Amino acid sequence: MGISDEQKVGFMGSCKRKLISVVGRIKKLGRDDPRRIIHSLKVGLALTFVSLLYYWRPLYDGFGIASIWAVLTVVVVFEFTVGATLSKGLNRGLGTLLAGALGVGAQHFASLFGQTGEPIVLGIFVFLLAAASTFSRFFPRIKARYDYGVLIFILTFSLVSVSGYRVEKILELAHQRLSTILIGGATCVFISLFICPVWAGETLHNTIASNIEKLANYLEGFGGEYFQYEDNEESIIVEDHSKLHNKLSSLQAYKSVLTSQSSEESLANLASWEPKHGKFSFGHPWKQYLKIGSLTRQCAYQIESLNGYVIPADIQVAIQFRRRIEESCKAISTESGKALRILASSIKAMTNPSSSSKTHIENAKAAIDDLKHTLKSGYLESSDLLGIIPDATVCCILIDIVKSVEKISEATDELGRSARFKSVEATVSPEKSSQLLHRGIVNPVFDSECGDGDDHVVIRVDNNNINNNNEAGEIGKCQGNLDVKPTSKGEIIVCK
Amino acid sequence: MGISDEQKVGFMGSCKRKLISVVGRIKKLGRDDPRRIIHSLKVGLALTFVSLLYYWRPLYDGFGIASIWAVLTVVVVFEFTVGATLSKGLNRGLGTLLAGALGVGAQHFASLFGQTGEPIVLGIFVFLLAAASTFSRFFPRIKARYDYGVLIFILTFSLVSVSGYRVEKILELAHQRLSTILIGGATCVFISLFICPVWAGETLHNTIASNIEKLANYLEGFGGEYFQYEDNEESIIVEDHSKLHNKLSSLQAYKSVLTSQSSEESLANLASWEPKHGKFSFGHPWKQYLKIGSLTRQCAYQIESLNGYVIPADIQVAIQFRRRIEESCKAISTESGKALRILASSIKAMTNPSSSSKTHIENAKAAIDDLKHTLKSGYLESSDLLGIIPDATVCCILIDIVKSVEKISEATDELGRSARFKSVEATVSPEKSSQLLHRGIVNPVFDSECGDGDDHVVIRVDNNNINNNNEAGEIGKCQGNLDVKPTSKGEIIVCK
Repeated sequence: MGISDEQKVGFMGSCKRKLISVVGRIKKLGRDDPRRIIHSLKVGLALTFVSLLYYWRPLYDGFGIASIWAVLTVVVVFEFTVGATLSKGLNRGLGTLLAGALGVGAQHFASLFGQTGEPIVLGIFVFLLAAASTFSRFFPRIKARYDYGVLIFILTFSLVSVSGYRVEKILELAHQRLSTILIGGATCVFISLFICPVWAGETLHNTIASNIEKLANYLEGFGGEYFQYEDNEESIIVEDHSKLHNKLSSLQAYKSVLTSQSSEESLANLASWEPKHGKFSFGHPWKQYLKIGSLTRQCAYQIESLNGYVIPADIQVAIQFRRRIEESCKAISTESGKALRILASSIKAMTNPSSSSKTHIENAKAAIDDLKHTLKSGYLESSDLLGIIPDATVCCILIDIVKSVEKISEATDELGRSARFKSVEATVSPEKSSQLLHRGIVNPVFDSECGDGDDHVVIRVDNNNINNNNEAGEIGKCQGNLDVKPTSKGEIIVCK
Repeated sequence: MGISDEQKVGFMGSCKRKLISVVGRIKKLGRDDPRRIIHSLKVGLALTFVSLLYYWRPLYDGFGIASIWAVLTVVVVFEFTVGATLSKGLNRGLGTLLAGALGVGAQHFASLFGQTGEPIVLGIFVFLLAAASTFSRFFPRIKARYDYGVLIFILTFSLVSVSGYRVEKILELAHQRLSTILIGGATCVFISLFICPVWAGETLHNTIASNIEKLANYLEGFGGEYFQYEDNEESIIVEDHSKLHNKLSSLQAYKSVLTSQSSEESLANLASWEPKHGKFSFGHPWKQYLKIGSLTRQCAYQIESLNGYVIPADIQVAIQFRRRIEESCKAISTESGKALRILASSIKAMTNPSSSSKTHIENAKAAIDDLKHTLKSGYLESSDLLGIIPDATVCCILIDIVKSVEKISEATDELGRSARFKSVEATVSPEKSSQLLHRGIVNPVFDSECGDGDDHVVIRVDNNNINNNNEAGEIGKCQGNLDVKPTSKGEIIVCK
């Protein structure tokens, strides 16, 4: 009644498949972030080093059984980032010192009450301090920075005050324990600082920049995807929803920004423990990163609702309306995306965002004006308001996104000021980028056709555009309080 | 050169003020969640109890110095919720057992290599196991459930394999340590389970319900606030933005839902460790709560963008358009809110959501049809498309919110099925609720004016409405494939 060969082969096969899948997952985890592998090796190194305390006779004779505290310290203190390791190490050190001193005091005080009274008094002390410290851990500020320290405080106080009752040589014990904890902590801090350090601050810095980049990717891709339709009919149902969605799913990276708050906050907290590293000084304005992060998240919420309109659920699209808003919307989206990309790369490089990010925002705003103008002049081809509502909503959200982008830009400027980012030259000339939008070239003119000394520019408008959209005639409205003088050959002179 | 009396008084005063503010914050923390105070007292109790091990001579003689492990266990294992305490306790127990066995094995194996080889072999073991275990903590699934267990595994393995080299009585040591950890763990679990237990499952349950309720509050309040305007002009700028915002800020509780993901996930994870408690059995479908939570969050994102339109930035509102959509939008928002409120209270009470929640959703959908109809027929008073865009966007978002509410309702039904919620009678009659919307009364008729045996109802439409909105004539369009027969006195008979 043995197992047949076939069963054996089947079993071996399934084992092999499982093993391969596990190995694959391990490889992926390591490839996604090689710092993980290095971190694991560092922990192994630190533990092995501390274990030497046991084997090396002179050290063992000095510390004896207390050397287990060095092992214990390494295991609980060594964290992924330098900031976390430092924070835990300092918390552990301070908690131990404070609680040790208090414990010795409490033990001494309790001993005044004699053999019977001592355990009762100590019991009351332990109860009160443990309850009070535990309660203090509910304060958000203590929870964020000193949670581990309070835990160690409770632990050490109980141990010292209680074991003092038995182990008479309490001061020697305290000395041994502190030295071993110091050795363990120092090992962690040393290895964490000097062997391929992982900085919480740097990670936060890169996270914020790459989050902004994710939004930029979406916005730059949005226009091209949303305005893909066959325009052979008055009113169409946008087809190939699933295909469209697949294309857009490559842009869905922004979704991770929606839930980035807690990790950003913990990184900023850990970063504040870190010393100067790379381009980041101690006291780098990490809180400003949180502000940028929260504005980025706000923008991600808007993109989330924008994303909902990419696959309209069986709503007939008023194609003529969509065609009319297409150019402005594409421009708004693309220019916002470009502005974000410049902001992201300037954060990454720690340079002041070049003026080109502002130019892109201005371009986006100009496109909004164009859009508003289109909407205001708005003759409706069909009176089908329902058909244009999704598109109108997209317009509205895009306008809001530009506001968000502007806020992100301001917050980045503030970061640049407080973190003293370097300045660089603009990489995109304003002229080039304004070409993108106005479909005409804006040139300063020097021969005065306006009043003396007034600033004025010549806008040369493409003749085709004049014919198609009656645009030349409307520029006067757009510019509001500007004085517009049409000249020959489609040139218009605007005097401020 | 002493300190003047005034300075003394000033110093005392500032001390007093600080003290009062700290006491105030402590009181607030306790009042917000009294379970925090109870938890702190419970920790104090557990620690004091375990400290007794030291004082009670028979126990001390049995365990000796190892009793510090009981104190250590209590301090690190005792957590706020039962689930967290159980999870940490079990993790600690399992990690210790496994690592202890492996440690003894490793120590035995290493001893084969003689005096010189032993520390080298043990060092290699410690390095490999520590590195591998640390790496395994990066797996999200292990991180979520077994992070602490792996930590304890590394700790114990290092301690046992290394200290075995010195302390020859390794088995006795292991026995002592396990017993004391057991005592510490059992104390925690006992106190956490039987003295005012805080259940992660119950907390998750209530959080999900109250999150849905927060959205309900917003939606029920939205219509009333958004459509507050003085309607004495064709086109107005909505005034008193700040006042409006203050009113709405009482509804801003929904914002906390935006960032609830991580706490919900950790609660669901802890809840899965908890035994049967109250109405929750072991194996209660906690994952379904996460699904509802994520749908609720989706809806909160939509409300977040809706909230952006409450204070339109200097955009002229086309008042006539707003007046026309007012009733439908208010109905959509209020009915969605009511549906959510019923879902929330049915989750809270663990009863199957009464059919009235579905009725409210149906009402909201009917209001959407009304709205679409209004928009389709849409004559634009002015051709000012720009002025109506914010309102149109609000319409669009409200329509999406109804879809989200429907998804939440479906997920709640699913929860009701898998968690076997009790059934209750509907508390709102469909008749009553349909009154809310149709501004007419729907009555079944029994004298057959349609074909024999056909279902049909009489809709009595208010004469005012007919005059104002030309509604009677349009009902035929609304109902689609229904056969509509107008009669005298504004009655219409609809035959299915």
